[in-house]
Amino acid sequence: MEKINVTFEMIKEAESVLENIINHNELQFSQTFSNIANANIFIKPENLQKTGSYKIRGAYNKLRTLSKEEREKGVLTASAGNHAQGLALAAKMTGIQATVFMPKNATLAKIEATKSYGAKIVNIGDNFDETTQEALKFQKESGSLFISPFNDDYIIAGQGTIGLEILKENPNIKNIIVPIGGGGVIAGVSIAAKTINPNIKIFGVQAEGSPAMFNSFKAGKLTFVDKSETIADGINIKQPAQRTFDIIHKYVDDVTTVDEDEISQAVLYLLERCKLVVEPSGAVGVAALLSKKITVSGDTVILISGGNVDIKMLNNIIQKGLVKAGRYLKFITTISDLPGSLHKLLGSLYDLNASIININHDRLRTNLKIGYTQVEISLETKNINHNEYIVTELNKFGYEIQII
Amino acid sequence: MEKINVTFEMIKEAESVLENIINHNELQFSQTFSNIANANIFIKPENLQKTGSYKIRGAYNKLRTLSKEEREKGVLTASAGNHAQGLALAAKMTGIQATVFMPKNATLAKIEATKSYGAKIVNIGDNFDETTQEALKFQKESGSLFISPFNDDYIIAGQGTIGLEILKENPNIKNIIVPIGGGGVIAGVSIAAKTINPNIKIFGVQAEGSPAMFNSFKAGKLTFVDKSETIADGINIKQPAQRTFDIIHKYVDDVTTVDEDEISQAVLYLLERCKLVVEPSGAVGVAALLSKKITVSGDTVILISGGNVDIKMLNNIIQKGLVKAGRYLKFITTISDLPGSLHKLLGSLYDLNASIININHDRLRTNLKIGYTQVEISLETKNINHNEYIVTELNKFGYEIQII
Repeated sequence: MEKINVTFEMIKEAESVLENIINHNELQFSQTFSNIANANIFIKPENLQKTGSYKIRGAYNKLRTLSKEEREKGVLTASAGNHAQGLALAAKMTGIQATVFMPKNATLAKIEATKSYGAKIVNIGDNFDETTQEALKFQKESGSLFISPFNDDYIIAGQGTIGLEILKENPNIKNIIVPIGGGGVIAGVSIAAKTINPNIKIFGVQAEGSPAMFNSFKAGKLTFVDKSETIADGINIKQPAQRTFDIIHKYVDDVTTVDEDEISQAVLYLLERCKLVVEPSGAVGVAALLSKKITVSGDTVILISGGNVDIKMLNNIIQKGLVKAGRYLKFITTISDLPGSLHKLLGSLYDLNASIININHDRLRTNLKIGYTQVEISLETKNINHNEYIVTELNKFGYEIQII
Repeated sequence: MEKINVTFEMIKEAESVLENIINHNELQFSQTFSNIANANIFIKPENLQKTGSYKIRGAYNKLRTLSKEEREKGVLTASAGNHAQGLALAAKMTGIQATVFMPKNATLAKIEATKSYGAKIVNIGDNFDETTQEALKFQKESGSLFISPFNDDYIIAGQGTIGLEILKENPNIKNIIVPIGGGGVIAGVSIAAKTINPNIKIFGVQAEGSPAMFNSFKAGKLTFVDKSETIADGINIKQPAQRTFDIIHKYVDDVTTVDEDEISQAVLYLLERCKLVVEPSGAVGVAALLSKKITVSGDTVILISGGNVDIKMLNNIIQKGLVKAGRYLKFITTISDLPGSLHKLLGSLYDLNASIININHDRLRTNLKIGYTQVEISLETKNINHNEYIVTELNKFGYEIQII
């Protein structure tokens, strides 16, 4: 039996509370995505929001409701990510002390960012469950209020203000695509949007490797997963809440999943085409569109939920994207071990406009004919056509090429 | 003797012409940059403009002035960059055929983008001068109008609309920092801003490796450079124009330069802190601020002129930034050549939370004592402290570490 406490009025109230607190980032029309989807695609860039994600909305809306006594005891949470930063800034703005428990392996950038908003950081636990256990212990000792990232009506109402903003800016919107982790933001957005216009379709997207809410939606009841793994760490939630499930069950039209390659591809597209840095969890909506897991017509908004991606992960995603796009070529070939043979090969590569990254010349391989030696070469190339051209030309020169 | 034909009225006219043509991206306040500069720093994100740079403004404003006869003969330019894309889209919007000459080494992404707006691409010339020569030949044959990226009053007036937008949104602005290549955008912006408020300070920034307008400004007369080299390809101009120099000479308060490291650092900051993809030439204003080459007080806008950076160059910038931030460690050490020694070393690295990228184990180095062998190891690490910790601990275990 569903019991939904979040009302449209609560979201409207949150909107006026947040008016001068948050950034109001306009919808951005994307010609590229519109061409691919054959619809008018806009993105709502909450990666440009304060603290790099929408989480400040819910956190601030929650904190302003605390009693004097609660405020004095401070608040805490366990999070390595966007909620930590959102809560930390909201606490700073409202003059409340926040304590954030983070796993030991949290990246320095996120620790530093959270610290810079004035939160106390406790780095503890080898994994998130251990960290959460420690946070709950601390809660009992301190009497601080634990602020959930999604299992709270005021948090949900705060995130829902995104729905109001979208429809205020473009009342013509037919579809809204939203990432799902614990389900807080899609819950709020769907109440806001469906109240204004019940014909709007709301689509949720999860990572294939962490499908708790997808499973729940399909099963029609709240379901947990034991294990989950995805680069979309911001939506990697094993145990969503009954509270968010009930809203999603009632208001969301469909939930789908995208795989890791699709997510990476979307991050790269957003980087190259939209000039936006988006974290993997923030890109799942675009991933669903690009992979045709969701098809839409008419004016459609994709929520880009955040941009707090570790720069090293971004680097790995770009690297893989470049390999996929044929911007690297790695091969083994056999050359004579007479002096000058390697020099000659390098001359050919120069003529073919290939730029050498690495050469591994192994004269001791035993599986070769006497008089021959093997060389492994990595090249920077222009594109897949250029790769093919290089291989064809080297073949013409008599080199056998084994691409690795 | 200065003769400036671009008027404030021309810029106002361009503004109404462009009203429904371009994106109107709001100023973004940056807390990070404000803290560093001890001033209120806003960025004007023209990397989010159509075609990924502000160039559409000038190009469209120029094309709408052409006569019927000129329109029929088409337009051309030589450019591998933002002007090519801006002109191509403006031509498409105004129903004019554009031909764009690009050097043979232009990146595929820029060729494809320009082509996608309907321009004819001629890939010719080993360097930009050769390409321009070919474009001029074509101009004589075809009678098409050559559209300069900056040496044109309507182009300058179009770019100047950025100045109007900035001051309309925040009339309190005290300083505007603008990248300079040929000088078109700073010329337009300074006429617009100084007409509205003569007390506003305008600062120009060039790349140290391509300082033609910097030299001209300091010398008080137009000067060319013979050679120039910078990753900021969008502002790599050897021969700026008298037209832009005269305006800069009259209106701009100071011009400074930034080096390649400062530019890379700024690109990385914009990526990490502002979640924006910015090309090197678009980041020179931020570079000047971060490196304290420009100091300001009060409300200050930095123009981010574009985001069309080749993804491979972005990757290289990130890589170098990660090395600088101590996120990689590469070293050589000597181990016994008894079986199991390498295994033992790897065990220690595992215990130190270091993730191995590459191992080069060379048992044939001749400069070592008998019984010893050398191993070269690349690690992913968390930060500079982690690097130091790894080296200290390995020393304790008896390994001599030579960082390379």
